[in-house]
Amino acid sequence: MLEVFHVPEADAVRVPAEALHRTVRGLLEKVGVPPEEAHLAADVLIAADLMGVDSHGVSNMLRIYLERYREGRLNPRPRPRVVRETPATATMDGDRGLGIIVGHRAMDLAIRKARDVGMGMVTLRNSGHLGMIGYFALRAVPHGMIGLAMTATGPTMVPTFGREPRLGTNPIAVAVPAGEEPPFLFDGAMTPVAVNKVWLTQRYRRPLPPGILADEEGRPVLEPRIAPSHFRLLPLGSLRETGSHKGYSLACMVEVLAGLLSAAGFGAKVGSGHYAHAFLALRVDAFRPLEEFRCEMDEFLRALKATPPAPGHERVLVAGQPEWEEQERRKVRGIPLHREVVQWFRETCAEMGVPLEWA
Amino acid sequence: MLEVFHVPEADAVRVPAEALHRTVRGLLEKVGVPPEEAHLAADVLIAADLMGVDSHGVSNMLRIYLERYREGRLNPRPRPRVVRETPATATMDGDRGLGIIVGHRAMDLAIRKARDVGMGMVTLRNSGHLGMIGYFALRAVPHGMIGLAMTATGPTMVPTFGREPRLGTNPIAVAVPAGEEPPFLFDGAMTPVAVNKVWLTQRYRRPLPPGILADEEGRPVLEPRIAPSHFRLLPLGSLRETGSHKGYSLACMVEVLAGLLSAAGFGAKVGSGHYAHAFLALRVDAFRPLEEFRCEMDEFLRALKATPPAPGHERVLVAGQPEWEEQERRKVRGIPLHREVVQWFRETCAEMGVPLEWA
Repeated sequence: MLEVFHVPEADAVRVPAEALHRTVRGLLEKVGVPPEEAHLAADVLIAADLMGVDSHGVSNMLRIYLERYREGRLNPRPRPRVVRETPATATMDGDRGLGIIVGHRAMDLAIRKARDVGMGMVTLRNSGHLGMIGYFALRAVPHGMIGLAMTATGPTMVPTFGREPRLGTNPIAVAVPAGEEPPFLFDGAMTPVAVNKVWLTQRYRRPLPPGILADEEGRPVLEPRIAPSHFRLLPLGSLRETGSHKGYSLACMVEVLAGLLSAAGFGAKVGSGHYAHAFLALRVDAFRPLEEFRCEMDEFLRALKATPPAPGHERVLVAGQPEWEEQERRKVRGIPLHREVVQWFRETCAEMGVPLEWA
Repeated sequence: MLEVFHVPEADAVRVPAEALHRTVRGLLEKVGVPPEEAHLAADVLIAADLMGVDSHGVSNMLRIYLERYREGRLNPRPRPRVVRETPATATMDGDRGLGIIVGHRAMDLAIRKARDVGMGMVTLRNSGHLGMIGYFALRAVPHGMIGLAMTATGPTMVPTFGREPRLGTNPIAVAVPAGEEPPFLFDGAMTPVAVNKVWLTQRYRRPLPPGILADEEGRPVLEPRIAPSHFRLLPLGSLRETGSHKGYSLACMVEVLAGLLSAAGFGAKVGSGHYAHAFLALRVDAFRPLEEFRCEMDEFLRALKATPPAPGHERVLVAGQPEWEEQERRKVRGIPLHREVVQWFRETCAEMGVPLEWA
C-alpha cells in the first residue's frame, strides 16, 4: 500500500468497524433498502475499510451510492433474475440494484454451479457499482474454491496510442485458498492505479507519480502531477515499450467477459455510471485433491515472501498480505475517517434521522 | 509490433510457409514424432511465423525442441491422459509430450466441455513448451466460443521489491470471435516483454528500453540496455508506483491456474524447462445469442480502432490486428528467416537427411 492513497493520520478520526457498519446500514435503510440487503452492502464497504482499501470503503463510496438512490438511478428493492443458463454458466439481470448487494446473488450462483459441475461463471448486467470486487472473489474461498470477479466500468482509460478514453479501469480480482497462510487476494484495475485512488490523491492534493496519467491529447504524463478534475488514465504498462498494450488488452478482455457476454454493452457505448460484472468459481478438488493444493499453496506463498529483497526494500509481499495485516490493526484501532468525512456523516445522519453510532 | 523484435530486413531470406511447414515436419519426424503430430506442431510454429510472432516461430523454437527430443527430455510418442474430471473441468498429464502437440488434446477437451455444459477448463501438466499460446485460444473461435490459454514457465520474473527471479513470464492469451472483424487475439507475457523477444534483441545486439530488466540485485534498469546472458525481468507495470504488483500478481494467478491446479508445482520449485498450462473455452451462446454478440463485438472493435490517435501516432490498434495484417503480407511474401537460421537449416537438414524444401 502506498501512503499516497491513505487518509493522512493527522486528519483521521478512528471509528470502530461495528459502529460504522450500523450507521451505514441505517442510512441505506432510509433510502429504502431492506435490512438484510443493507447488511450485505455494509459488509462489503466495511470489509474494504478494514483491509485498508480506503478507496473503496465508506468515505469514497457511500455518498455516491446514496445520491444514486435518491436520483432513482439505483433500485432499492431489486429482483435480480437469471435470463439465460447452462449447467456451468448464467447471465443475470440485476434490476438496477447496487452491485455490492446483487453481486452476492451472482457469486453465490457461480459457487453453486462450481459445486455441481466443477466450475461456474455468472455475468451480471443492469447493476450498480461492485465496490471492492475482491470481496466477491473471496466468497469462493471458504468453499475450497478459487474465486474471480471482474467489472467493466465507464471509460477512463485511453487505449495505447489513443487520445480519448475508450475503456474502463476494468479491475480483475482473484482469491485463492491456502492452508495455514491467509488466502492469496489480488484485486487490481488494469490501469496503473484505480480511479477511486486518484480521487483520494485529488482530495489530499497529492501529485501522482509519472506513468499514470495521459494528458488531454493522450500523451503519457512523465513527471509527477496532481490529477486534473477530468483525468485520463494510461493502461497498465504505461508506455507501449513497457507493455501498455497488455493493460489495454486485458481491459478489453474484462469488457468482453463482463460487458459483452452479459449483453450490457461496452463502456464507450453506454457511458459512465454503468457497470457490468463477471464472477467465476473454480472448485479446487475438481482438478486435484484440496489438501494437497492447500499445502503447495502455502509453500508457494512462503517461497515468494522469502525472496531476498532488492536494495532499499525490507521484504517481498504477496497479494493480500498488506490487506490482511492492515485488517488486524484496524480491528483493534478502528477505521480512520477523514474529518471531512466525519462531518459529512454528522450532517447526513442528522438530516436523515439516523443515529450516528460512534458519536 | 516493435521493430526491435523482428528479423532485420537486410539479413532476411524469405521462405514460403508451405515449404517451411514441410521441412519442420520432416525434422520432427526424424526425432520420432508421428507424422500427424509433427503436422500439428508445424501448424503452431508456422502460424506464429505467418503472424509475425518471430519470437515463437521456427527460428527461436525448433532448435530447442529438437535438442530436447535428443536429450530425452521430450517424449516423441506421448500418450496424454485425463487424470481427474468433472463435467466442466479436467486435469491432464501430457506424458512429457511437446506442448504444441499435446496442447491440442487439452484445448479440444475444454471445447467439448463448453459445448456440453457452457464452459470448460482443462489443466495440463508434464508437458513441454506451448509455443505461441494464442494459437490454442484461437481454436475456440470457429466454435462460437471465447478461448483462453495460459502457461506457467520457469522463473525469470522478479517479484515487486524482489532480488531473485521467482515467477515465469506466465503469458495469458484470449481469443474472441467477432462478426465481420477478424477475431480479437491477445497473447502476452505478464512481464513487459516475453523471454523469447529478449533473445531476439540479444541475437541482433539491440538495447532494450528502460523499465524491462532488473539488474543483478533486483533494481529496475531505467536506461536502455542490451540484455545480459542471464537476465531478470520486471513484472508488467515495471515499478511499484506504476503497478508492477499487478503484473506480479497476475503472474501468480497463472502459476496457480496452470501450475498448482494441474499439480505440476510452481516455477521456483520445479526450475526452468518445466511448463504447465491451462485452457478455457466459453460458449458465447451460453450467455447471450451468438449473432447479437458478434455484431456488438464488431462495434466494440471498430470503436476502439476509430479512437483519435495521440500526437505522433497514426492509428489505434486492437489486439490481433498487427498479426492479422502481417499474416496477409507473409502469405504472399513468405516468412523472413535470418541468414544464420537458414544456415542452421541447411546443416541440420543435411545431417538428418531431411530435404530442405525451399532450396
